[in-house]
Amino acid sequence: MDRVNNILDEMLKEEIPAMLLLQEENIFYMSGFKPSGFSILVLKDEPLLLVSKMDSEEANETSRIPLQEFNSFKDLKNMLNELKLSKLGIEESMKIGFYNKIKNNYNMEVTDLIERSRMIKTSHEINSIKKSISIAEKSFNKLEFKKNEWELAAELEYLMRMNGSQKEAFETIVASGSRSSLPHALPTSNKLEYPLLIDWGAVWDNYSSDCTRTIIETEKQEEVLNICLEAQKEAIKSIKPGISACEIDNIARSVIKDYGYGDNFIHSTGHGVGLQVHEKPSISSREEITLEKNMVITIEPGIYLEGEWGVRIEDIVLIKNKAGKLSKLPPVIND
Amino acid sequence: MDRVNNILDEMLKEEIPAMLLLQEENIFYMSGFKPSGFSILVLKDEPLLLVSKMDSEEANETSRIPLQEFNSFKDLKNMLNELKLSKLGIEESMKIGFYNKIKNNYNMEVTDLIERSRMIKTSHEINSIKKSISIAEKSFNKLEFKKNEWELAAELEYLMRMNGSQKEAFETIVASGSRSSLPHALPTSNKLEYPLLIDWGAVWDNYSSDCTRTIIETEKQEEVLNICLEAQKEAIKSIKPGISACEIDNIARSVIKDYGYGDNFIHSTGHGVGLQVHEKPSISSREEITLEKNMVITIEPGIYLEGEWGVRIEDIVLIKNKAGKLSKLPPVIND
Repeated sequence: MDRVNNILDEMLKEEIPAMLLLQEENIFYMSGFKPSGFSILVLKDEPLLLVSKMDSEEANETSRIPLQEFNSFKDLKNMLNELKLSKLGIEESMKIGFYNKIKNNYNMEVTDLIERSRMIKTSHEINSIKKSISIAEKSFNKLEFKKNEWELAAELEYLMRMNGSQKEAFETIVASGSRSSLPHALPTSNKLEYPLLIDWGAVWDNYSSDCTRTIIETEKQEEVLNICLEAQKEAIKSIKPGISACEIDNIARSVIKDYGYGDNFIHSTGHGVGLQVHEKPSISSREEITLEKNMVITIEPGIYLEGEWGVRIEDIVLIKNKAGKLSKLPPVIND
Repeated sequence: MDRVNNILDEMLKEEIPAMLLLQEENIFYMSGFKPSGFSILVLKDEPLLLVSKMDSEEANETSRIPLQEFNSFKDLKNMLNELKLSKLGIEESMKIGFYNKIKNNYNMEVTDLIERSRMIKTSHEINSIKKSISIAEKSFNKLEFKKNEWELAAELEYLMRMNGSQKEAFETIVASGSRSSLPHALPTSNKLEYPLLIDWGAVWDNYSSDCTRTIIETEKQEEVLNICLEAQKEAIKSIKPGISACEIDNIARSVIKDYGYGDNFIHSTGHGVGLQVHEKPSISSREEITLEKNMVITIEPGIYLEGEWGVRIEDIVLIKNKAGKLSKLPPVIND
């Protein structure tokens, strides 16, 4: 219950006497139980996990926090009323429909305390992410590049599953030829052309990985990919505890701008990875969070020429005194 | 733009002059564009789709609604202010963090108008669901039942992909032996045992399918599965336009109760299927929605003996004057 006690300490400091957690990753993080249906964790001195009847057998086996069956919103409101809270912490992801159902004379305040705590990974979490990366890489290395986009995605996902991934971390992107100018293009039945951009990830022990490689063909494509590689390298070199996320975004962006492709880098430089494939901190121009030891983030500069093609490179790095790539896959893949 | 005009008419009737849509399925339903990142549809007399820079090329190709790039919450608030709205309709799924960012002196009111409209499927939507079901069934029919849970799920998902599914509709459930007592058990490395419960679905043109079969071994398992089959049959027989969802839940539940397993049917009887695998209406004891022609729902009674095993049968039905199964797979599968 170390994690629970640590979070309760944090809550005390921020004057939040109790919190409601609904997001499944936050519930898993605190309790060890991953809900399949509706579930609420009431985080307070004696924390309580409310689960649906359907989930109660599974929760009984896995939750570190005592359980009770969730019956009705009325019961929940009564329970919260009885606590006579000065304030109730809620997640920013709470749905307004849910908020309206439970609002009452306690004061609800959005806090990202759990999401901030999740940014700093334990060694157990780092090992799970490493395992997730190694599954994704091992699977990629067995791919045959002879099919259409759809079949390539199917094969990659199958290989990840067979290598122990719980599922794909997100919808696999296989974007070939002109579709590579769409940063999030989903696979089609198009025959493979170049550039061939693949963005994929595995899940191990509920922890995601996330990687992108672009296989190129022409000299022009090589030139543009090299700019992304330089931007990635410069960004990673500059990462250290104490620097802000937006500074790192700016460093990657400046390299690309200097080559005249500033308007073609149409997304942020990276994001945290963990129980969610996209989590805090965002490595973007507006994110002022300070980077710290044991954060795990992606660095993924890309250049997209609208209507023509695009390239991107993405790796996961772990921040210690400096940042080091956790991925072992070479940056340039020869088909 | 028929759909947009129809919804604008509905909004007029419900005195909602404008709505903000953020949920990707609602945006796709109205615009034909499926966002990969953050996107907002402002639904009003001259509707406007706000998209991230990253999505703008794709949105340009697919959206029936004029586009603008999303810049900042401040711009959005200004735009909403200038509309001088008496009321702004919002989805119940809007996050409280987002709500707080845009709240202002306009009155925001939660409405499920889009979700209610989505309950009634067009013939195009029904055809997509049928295609999604046929992909799932064709793939299932090619399965070999010789592996562990994990490998069976991997194979089924691969077959669905190769048969044209965009992805799996949800995390495939393969629950074997004692794990079948957990309604939402995810696959493990356990060797296949019986009962073997498989719950899976494909996605075609963004429309999901959802089906469950349980392969049984002992006479006792057969007896309990037959109770589920009877409950499903009775429920489907009773469906007609005008009956309420809770009545159908009650009919399925009563059959199971009569055999003494009432406490072992620990979830609702079904749910709507469409752009989301779980959407309105819920076929549950608390859902008073009246069933109507062209709704597409699942009927999925199950019996779970805690610590022992469980069985479930699930099919999708289309409601016309009566309800008919869209699935063609036989209810009992012989391994």
